[in-house]
Amino acid sequence: MLKLYYSPGACALASHVALEEAGATYELHKIDLRQGQQKTPEYLAINPAGVTPALATDQGVITQNVAILTYVAQTHPQAGLVDFDDSFAFARMQAFNAWMASSLHPAIGKALFSRPPLEGAARDEAIEQALAKYDLAEQHLFVGPWALGENHSATDGYLIVFTRWARQAGLLDAGRFPRLNAHLDKVQARPAVARVLEVEGLTAV
Amino acid sequence: MLKLYYSPGACALASHVALEEAGATYELHKIDLRQGQQKTPEYLAINPAGVTPALATDQGVITQNVAILTYVAQTHPQAGLVDFDDSFAFARMQAFNAWMASSLHPAIGKALFSRPPLEGAARDEAIEQALAKYDLAEQHLFVGPWALGENHSATDGYLIVFTRWARQAGLLDAGRFPRLNAHLDKVQARPAVARVLEVEGLTAV
Ligand SMILES: N[C@@H](CCC(=O)N[C@@H](CS)C(=O)NCC(=O)O)C(=O)O
Ligand SMILES: N[C@@H](CCC(=O)N[C@@H](CS)C(=O)NCC(=O)O)C(=O)O
Repeated sequence: MLKLYYSPGACALASHVALEEAGATYELHKIDLRQGQQKTPEYLAINPAGVTPALATDQGVITQNVAILTYVAQTHPQAGLVDFDDSFAFARMQAFNAWMASSLHPAIGKALFSRPPLEGAARDEAIEQALAKYDLAEQHLFVGPWALGENHSATDGYLIVFTRWARQAGLLDAGRFPRLNAHLDKVQARPAVARVLEVEGLTAV
Repeated sequence: MLKLYYSPGACALASHVALEEAGATYELHKIDLRQGQQKTPEYLAINPAGVTPALATDQGVITQNVAILTYVAQTHPQAGLVDFDDSFAFARMQAFNAWMASSLHPAIGKALFSRPPLEGAARDEAIEQALAKYDLAEQHLFVGPWALGENHSATDGYLIVFTRWARQAGLLDAGRFPRLNAHLDKVQARPAVARVLEVEGLTAV
């Protein structure tokens, strides 16, 4: 059976949502990041990079949200989470997902979750740089009403990881980010997302 | 026709190698990063993120190496650059590629290409953190003899972006990284890669 290693509210939420939207059969294993459980020998044997998510399958472990999303979608085609047949549409999804992994996530992660926390001018600068990434999503990458256009996809559950973090930090200004705000509400209202939030001990933000 | 926007020796090399390995018909458009051509209005109209690579297609622009690699592979299936049919193998490739985009690239980029350049203890720390990522590739992610195992794939041309940078900076120690060193030599010896290096005005390192 599939087993997802996740940390509540962290970026593994994207993979968790994909599994639930797909109607997959899976187990959950919680990794407490604040207690450092991602660096224990037991977990490093599963994911030597020492981060969540990781998805254990019968064939081996898959890491990285970008990869887990396409794996879950490809093995649960009836859920329509990824369009594999249209190579251009698939590439646009991959581009959005890879941009989140390589650009949006590091930028907002640095601003909000650096250890030790950033302070003063360094924090302001990191927040400004992160918000420039949200501007890019709001104005260019986000198609609407779903992230990739007319159809809901696995990218929606990934994007809300970062819009949730921003809203919780008071950074998702309604005037500056109208489309991202509407999208976050729309995704959090999905039954599968509500179930995932509840299981992770979270609420809609 | 396909048109690749690239900067010599930068990470667009991965996409350039994929196009050449695929036997694709494409044009090249050079963007000089040192002159800031990636931030001109003309280029921002192509890629609002202001980075290379970008691949212009008849349907629109695709950004992000992770996405361009699968697009080129999917539209040139005879080249066998990506195994789409085996969902687990495909996920492992996606995981390796997404890890490079989100973890290896930012770490080595920070160490070597920060503006202004890092100096002293800050540079040493950034290099140490980057080399820990190369350790992860050497010891865990890299399968061998090619990055993903017995078969050459689009991941090989992506990995050498970062092993080239490290070797050029004197960081790809033969004792610490025997498999990554052998891999870099093996990939640079491929005729398609030699052609790409020559066109970009580079040599094997
Ligand atoms: N690009 C990776 C990012 C993984 C990642 O950085 N996860 C964070 C949580 S959002 C983590 O586990 N951090 C723990 C640590 O760095 O110690 C992915 O999408 O899976
Ligand atoms: N994750 C992106 C990274 C793109 C990227 O950062 N490209 C660099 C060159 S290696 C760039 O164009 N930098 C110019 C700049 O940041 O101004 C990808 O794989 O396409």
